[in-house]
Amino acid sequence: MIAVLKQNATNEQIENLTEWLEGRGLNVHLSRGEFHTILGLIGDTSKVDTELLEGLEMVESVKRISEPFKNANRQFHPDDSIIEVCGLKIGGPNFQIMAGPCSVESEEQIINIAKSVKAAGASILRGGAFKPRTSPYDFQGLRADGIELLLEAKKQTGMPIVTEIMNANHLDLFEQVDIIQVGARNMQNFELLKELGLCKKPILLKRGLANTIQELLMSAEYIIAGGNRNIILCERGIRTFETYSRNTLDISAVPILYGLTHLPVVVDPSHASGFARLVSPLALAATAAGAHGLMIEVHNDPVNAMCDGAQSLTPEEFTLVSQKVGRIREVL
Amino acid sequence: MIAVLKQNATNEQIENLTEWLEGRGLNVHLSRGEFHTILGLIGDTSKVDTELLEGLEMVESVKRISEPFKNANRQFHPDDSIIEVCGLKIGGPNFQIMAGPCSVESEEQIINIAKSVKAAGASILRGGAFKPRTSPYDFQGLRADGIELLLEAKKQTGMPIVTEIMNANHLDLFEQVDIIQVGARNMQNFELLKELGLCKKPILLKRGLANTIQELLMSAEYIIAGGNRNIILCERGIRTFETYSRNTLDISAVPILYGLTHLPVVVDPSHASGFARLVSPLALAATAAGAHGLMIEVHNDPVNAMCDGAQSLTPEEFTLVSQKVGRIREVL
Amino acid sequence: MIAVLKQNATNEQIENLTEWLEGRGLNVHLSRGEFHTILGLIGDTSKVDTELLEGLEMVESVKRISEPFKNANRQFHPDDSIIEVCGLKIGGPNFQIMAGPCSVESEEQIINIAKSVKAAGASILRGGAFKPRTSPYDFQGLRADGIELLLEAKKQTGMPIVTEIMNANHLDLFEQVDIIQVGARNMQNFELLKELGLCKKPILLKRGLANTIQELLMSAEYIIAGGNRNIILCERGIRTFETYSRNTLDISAVPILYGLTHLPVVVDPSHASGFARLVSPLALAATAAGAHGLMIEVHNDPVNAMCDGAQSLTPEEFTLVSQKVGRIREVL
Amino acid sequence: MIAVLKQNATNEQIENLTEWLEGRGLNVHLSRGEFHTILGLIGDTSKVDTELLEGLEMVESVKRISEPFKNANRQFHPDDSIIEVCGLKIGGPNFQIMAGPCSVESEEQIINIAKSVKAAGASILRGGAFKPRTSPYDFQGLRADGIELLLEAKKQTGMPIVTEIMNANHLDLFEQVDIIQVGARNMQNFELLKELGLCKKPILLKRGLANTIQELLMSAEYIIAGGNRNIILCERGIRTFETYSRNTLDISAVPILYGLTHLPVVVDPSHASGFARLVSPLALAATAAGAHGLMIEVHNDPVNAMCDGAQSLTPEEFTLVSQKVGRIREVL
Repeated sequence: MIAVLKQNATNEQIENLTEWLEGRGLNVHLSRGEFHTILGLIGDTSKVDTELLEGLEMVESVKRISEPFKNANRQFHPDDSIIEVCGLKIGGPNFQIMAGPCSVESEEQIINIAKSVKAAGASILRGGAFKPRTSPYDFQGLRADGIELLLEAKKQTGMPIVTEIMNANHLDLFEQVDIIQVGARNMQNFELLKELGLCKKPILLKRGLANTIQELLMSAEYIIAGGNRNIILCERGIRTFETYSRNTLDISAVPILYGLTHLPVVVDPSHASGFARLVSPLALAATAAGAHGLMIEVHNDPVNAMCDGAQSLTPEEFTLVSQKVGRIREVL
Repeated sequence: MIAVLKQNATNEQIENLTEWLEGRGLNVHLSRGEFHTILGLIGDTSKVDTELLEGLEMVESVKRISEPFKNANRQFHPDDSIIEVCGLKIGGPNFQIMAGPCSVESEEQIINIAKSVKAAGASILRGGAFKPRTSPYDFQGLRADGIELLLEAKKQTGMPIVTEIMNANHLDLFEQVDIIQVGARNMQNFELLKELGLCKKPILLKRGLANTIQELLMSAEYIIAGGNRNIILCERGIRTFETYSRNTLDISAVPILYGLTHLPVVVDPSHASGFARLVSPLALAATAAGAHGLMIEVHNDPVNAMCDGAQSLTPEEFTLVSQKVGRIREVL
Repeated sequence: MIAVLKQNATNEQIENLTEWLEGRGLNVHLSRGEFHTILGLIGDTSKVDTELLEGLEMVESVKRISEPFKNANRQFHPDDSIIEVCGLKIGGPNFQIMAGPCSVESEEQIINIAKSVKAAGASILRGGAFKPRTSPYDFQGLRADGIELLLEAKKQTGMPIVTEIMNANHLDLFEQVDIIQVGARNMQNFELLKELGLCKKPILLKRGLANTIQELLMSAEYIIAGGNRNIILCERGIRTFETYSRNTLDISAVPILYGLTHLPVVVDPSHASGFARLVSPLALAATAAGAHGLMIEVHNDPVNAMCDGAQSLTPEEFTLVSQKVGRIREVL
Repeated sequence: MIAVLKQNATNEQIENLTEWLEGRGLNVHLSRGEFHTILGLIGDTSKVDTELLEGLEMVESVKRISEPFKNANRQFHPDDSIIEVCGLKIGGPNFQIMAGPCSVESEEQIINIAKSVKAAGASILRGGAFKPRTSPYDFQGLRADGIELLLEAKKQTGMPIVTEIMNANHLDLFEQVDIIQVGARNMQNFELLKELGLCKKPILLKRGLANTIQELLMSAEYIIAGGNRNIILCERGIRTFETYSRNTLDISAVPILYGLTHLPVVVDPSHASGFARLVSPLALAATAAGAHGLMIEVHNDPVNAMCDGAQSLTPEEFTLVSQKVGRIREVL
């Protein structure tokens, strides 16, 4: 960590600050320049509050050199983490496709779709039971009943299931869920993250619409700090000024995360784009960029889907995507 | 609501869609053009799911004409809402300043600051007990103890208190809190909003960093839909590409919200800017733009504050701001 | 085009507006609703100024249905445009890689790199002679001499060249340049676009950092309106809040543009990311998303490059990317 | 300037780099830490290319400590610059309002508006002759004739005039123009900036929609580097995800620029918001935030204006704004 001091910092101020920092176990190196004095802080700075330091009157700016995430950091854990779900592996050389409807709507619907996507190459079934909706007047999901129906689909197809949690109080409903999803809007719901750190289940952590890659990793760090290292990161588009797509898929996040962390990264082209027509090119792009998996919305009857119909593929369309993805995987 | 159909929509498709929409109690007006056919949907469209309609193959785009928020909409409730807190009024011609430290740190600290800001013109005491922090390794607040200390400060100064909730399970700890704050990161924590709709306390609802003004109003709508109309909106900066300020204060949100909703709007220049030096000009700007109040971080010893020291005013600085704000209020 | 009128629009106002619109050759269809009246405007609305209409007191909002770009619109020209450059084709099924240094620095440098990238699969040589730099104190390019050196490299390798123009006054220096590049910062330099509309050379039009896809197409429309239909669009990253990459590559722009326009689209992963390490995954992603070509910075000695060294590939790295791109092209 | 080296940098690499930097006249201070080695570079670093340094393999990141703009920097020129225009002063304690139509449309129009805004308190007349329009099919301004009409209005009212240049070739048409405006889209048209550096006229430099405050100052630096120090900066809104306003006025830019530069800053609330209803609150906010002036669109007949009618005030509305602005100025 580097602290740049103002030109007018007095010797006494500098000495006091140096003493205070050394009291926290850091080594301090001083460089005096024509316009600024620089303190290089060496040691474990992950627990130093940058903002506190910036608040000091004599300090002009502070720059972290090590990333503030430690457990999620590839620098300290060079090998890829591989997350196991019912015998399937995600991460490293292992690639999985999660597919299914936005919302679970009925037993018939979820079972049909589950069978279709399995046949087409998906290995994990997605489906929303608790649905975060911008409007209180929109369909909010089947909630506990939706989870029951997902479990029935799992029983009939053997596919592990992933579904979103919105409230830590619901955790016992998720006992048989295989992967618990934290949605984009809850990426910084720290109370929820702390609870998920205490369970051992794999967590699919979606990046928030306006969250930086570093904030995504800090949220992963919350879960790991609680004791749960089974985290799959998910890029699903960020908010920009462009309006032709619902969000802007930050495809660069895939190789950037690969460099920063050992955790696997999957991409959700359905929410990123908001339009079925864009899902296939974005799924192929994510695969080519090195993602460890995909999460794709598929619906047997998109026109009558209770939400997100506009971005859902039909099982036939999904089959084509799945085949091309497989062939791109072979190239890499 | 207007639905623009694709050029190749067949007569049969159009008739089926018209019938389906009429079955939902809407009147449908058809305009046929050279390139497109347009359906004008008249009636109560607040419960029609726009995305579902856009998902239909024959539909090119859908445009809402009435805003999707109804209870928060000034069109249906032209008079300003005035929120009462322990005899104080916020909204309409009434202006209040909320001030206090980012975090409650000790009894001495909160009582001292409370007395200072009251003397300087603040009418409501702010202070964080539960703190949402990006890093799990940063100070997380005194939690329940922090609320106790705020209540002690209230007892000694007579000021009502506002503090942030992060988990609906904590609601009974907030029984004597006067205004419950929903932080920016929880603006779309819909499970929390639903719970707050069931209580009767005033809610200070902060806009999320990447949330549109419409989404802010939809979140207010969640609370009102539950039965609680006591909502104060808060603009606190949005995330942009600019890095000289922590966030970008969206000052236009003040007059825009004034036009769209009857709910009062306060501005938090401390979090919007992140630097004490910017707080005074932004506080004056917000007042001039027509805000119904301000929320300002004040600390007796910013350099040693446990968080947000960089953006806290000293009591002396706050006194100056408070005086200038009063004089601008007289001009308006 | 749809104009939504305010509830309080009088019959007389509506009649006057209708008459005025009909005087411009439009058919007007009226739908009256409980809260709003809607005018559907049918006919050639591309010359109606939306903002002017929105300025009318009785009008609440205006929505275009047809896109405002006409000559670039795929709706009216369904077949892919194919741009020819010295016998090479870009667009439709034809894919080309443009590669070379950020800046032309010396004869030896540009000739060496040209030979390397040609051997590795590039078909067009890029190189900056006029360089737009944020700082007046940074290297501004070899200017006219740089173009001379590019022409020498063309002579020795047979590769057509693409280089950026910053000033219409320099057009005669570009007489033997094969593709004239308009940089991101000049995408809305309309005076320059008008001049380029008058020449017949292929134009590589880069999307501005904060420009929408629609604005990119409107800038293409400026060039076509002048008589030059030889336009290649280029996505090179947009400005967002994320700081780990220099810009955010908007990969969705590739399939979106494919739907909206007949013009070919190439992607520049070097400027989009700003880091050599990210160029390969983004180049593969762009190829998989359906781009018609790539533009990649290659330097024989990135460490000593006079600009953009951080994002340049070595010839060896470029060879690997070029091979993988070819294999992904086979999959599609 | 600080360069953070990678953990695996060899002693030989560090020595070579140190030597190379010392050869450029810099003093180099070395701090070795557990994970990183830090070089503190002391001396005149304004001509070191940050990107070149970042391109070196052994370098992890580079941080400037001094701002890269030197002539525009308040640190080296602590006193406010005051720009004189026909005897009027802008900057320091002097405040001026520029008002007039978006476009000059006719002699009658511009003379009438000029008289109205002068009577209402404006001191400088604005009006567009050359108009940058997104669409080639929209009205492009009266061009040279527009400047003639502005000069006639100047003659009749005595007001100095400000109007936009889009092409350095037009400079002789601007010989009698008092302030030359560089529009947002041309803020990084460096060829134009260089030409304006050679003339002595005051330049009103508007911030680009996606340009940082630092880039705005670097563009000012281009003009100063050419020899022209008469620069007025203008904040006119940046592009964000919010759609209720055309752009997002970055009100914080006013106090931030005040801290960074000695140049005066004016605010254009008309282009920032896009709606007449928002102009008054934003004009008051900008005044309260400390702007040195305002630029406001006024039209005698907004409904029939040839562009930007939606955001133009009537002379009556402008009179009210101008009065309130004056009273807020008294408070400050």
